[in-house]
Amino acid sequence: MDIKNILVAGKYEELFQKQITNDESLNFRFIPVDEITLDDLSWADAYVGSKPCSNFNPSNLKWVHSFNAGVNNFLEIDGWKEDTLLTRTICSFGERISEYCLSYVLSDLQFHKYFKEKQVEKEWATKTPKMVKDLTIVIFGSGEIGQAVAKTFHRFGATVYGVSLSGKQKEFFKEITKPASAGPLLTLADWVISTLPLTKETMKLIDDEIFNHFKGAAFINVGRGATVDESAMIEGLNSGKIRYAVLDVLTAEPLPNDSALWGRDDLIITPHISAVTDLNEAISCFIETFSNIEKKEKLLNQVDFSKGY
Amino acid sequence: MDIKNILVAGKYEELFQKQITNDESLNFRFIPVDEITLDDLSWADAYVGSKPCSNFNPSNLKWVHSFNAGVNNFLEIDGWKEDTLLTRTICSFGERISEYCLSYVLSDLQFHKYFKEKQVEKEWATKTPKMVKDLTIVIFGSGEIGQAVAKTFHRFGATVYGVSLSGKQKEFFKEITKPASAGPLLTLADWVISTLPLTKETMKLIDDEIFNHFKGAAFINVGRGATVDESAMIEGLNSGKIRYAVLDVLTAEPLPNDSALWGRDDLIITPHISAVTDLNEAISCFIETFSNIEKKEKLLNQVDFSKGY
Repeated sequence: MDIKNILVAGKYEELFQKQITNDESLNFRFIPVDEITLDDLSWADAYVGSKPCSNFNPSNLKWVHSFNAGVNNFLEIDGWKEDTLLTRTICSFGERISEYCLSYVLSDLQFHKYFKEKQVEKEWATKTPKMVKDLTIVIFGSGEIGQAVAKTFHRFGATVYGVSLSGKQKEFFKEITKPASAGPLLTLADWVISTLPLTKETMKLIDDEIFNHFKGAAFINVGRGATVDESAMIEGLNSGKIRYAVLDVLTAEPLPNDSALWGRDDLIITPHISAVTDLNEAISCFIETFSNIEKKEKLLNQVDFSKGY
Repeated sequence: MDIKNILVAGKYEELFQKQITNDESLNFRFIPVDEITLDDLSWADAYVGSKPCSNFNPSNLKWVHSFNAGVNNFLEIDGWKEDTLLTRTICSFGERISEYCLSYVLSDLQFHKYFKEKQVEKEWATKTPKMVKDLTIVIFGSGEIGQAVAKTFHRFGATVYGVSLSGKQKEFFKEITKPASAGPLLTLADWVISTLPLTKETMKLIDDEIFNHFKGAAFINVGRGATVDESAMIEGLNSGKIRYAVLDVLTAEPLPNDSALWGRDDLIITPHISAVTDLNEAISCFIETFSNIEKKEKLLNQVDFSKGY
């Protein structure tokens, strides 16, 4: 693949220069995403950025590299040719999301909220924390991120099950099943964590049928908001089937100020921060990917258009 | 060692029976700790419990087994003979305390408090969490528990230093130093975690000299309260040298209702729950210790009277 002209959606010139020793055969344009012109796009062989510009058109591009793990924003755009390469950033998202999930699971196990209330009341009220090894955790999605989350909880001795479209078995999961047969696992779960990407197949995959199997599990969504049927989730919370939910992703982002979700005691909402791209790391990933393209090596972060991730 | 009569301080008959197949050569008395008589004590070869009874006297006992990891409550009592065996429970305390520490470190890294406030304000305000691997952590005490805590943070990529009386190097620590030379490490620390047992040497070991080296580190105490000079800690908090402190142990326990510590925003107080003994686990540990005594095997949980742990 002959890549000469690289269009970067953002004024990241300095950050790139820190990491790239340009061999002068490459030409870069660093342009804020909302100032990119059609001329820039037709000049470019490759487009690099966290989202497509408003006039984005993949038809002239040989390679698109996303600074994010999820590429649904790029795939929503028409005009992709089969031989255009789309790659995504994988890097430390798995570790970042694992720490996010573990932080909320441990905060619950260690009764942070309860002890804070007791401190306000100046009351020495003991209560013994449960341990991660006592937990059963069901993870939706067994890709890079789902597997990293599984590994983290497995290391602490939790029983970890997986749910994926393929149902293919993978390391760190006691068992992986397809969504249609996930019922018995969901019944056992203390926590259900979704790491699902957004594709045609996963849109509202976590719906009332899934939530109806919950017997008081807490729910974390660190995948994409639209993979969850939010009204079914609300019903699950109201009925107590879902003990509470921790949502880093939502169908509408940013969550509108007038959303009823903000005010619920049984929801913890964070603003899509569990896998924020560290730009330096994203640039390293871009460079590594470019080097692998040049060397014609296998790309672990190439998006399969038929799967959407 | 000839152990026939075992006095258990607590009505734990049923729990013991679940785990012990008595070979009829052993006699047990299960008596609540405040109902133990001098006759019970003189009958017993061994005393098993979480604390000494009020009339406790070790002079007639061959073996004392504590259900806790810390044995300062037993050692405070006079009359120990050199050949009396004192053992303590080690079991999963290290893992429990690790999860306690990790829960507070992750809650801080993931901005739980900030995002909660923003949720109340219905504001989508992003802020990128730092990762455990970005942290420098200094752990006081490198015994069973200190090393388990070090292992946990090391696995997440943190830089972990240790401070111990011996200064002996151990796995999972980048370096272990003696208290007198801990200054440079404390200056680097994001978190300082104390797992120190209470002995003559560790009483108020963490004092103003130690806290003066802090440059905004947060402090966790999961060892024993009296190893910390609490007024020096308060000064450190007031001056900002200590960012905030998480105290599971205090000099006075339960913390009196009128203590000024309860009301401070820069303190998180929990009621000595980071290593609560799970009784079933403590009984397993007792049985294992007894079996090792009978087989004359090396005891990993024997207390060294000269060290106090």
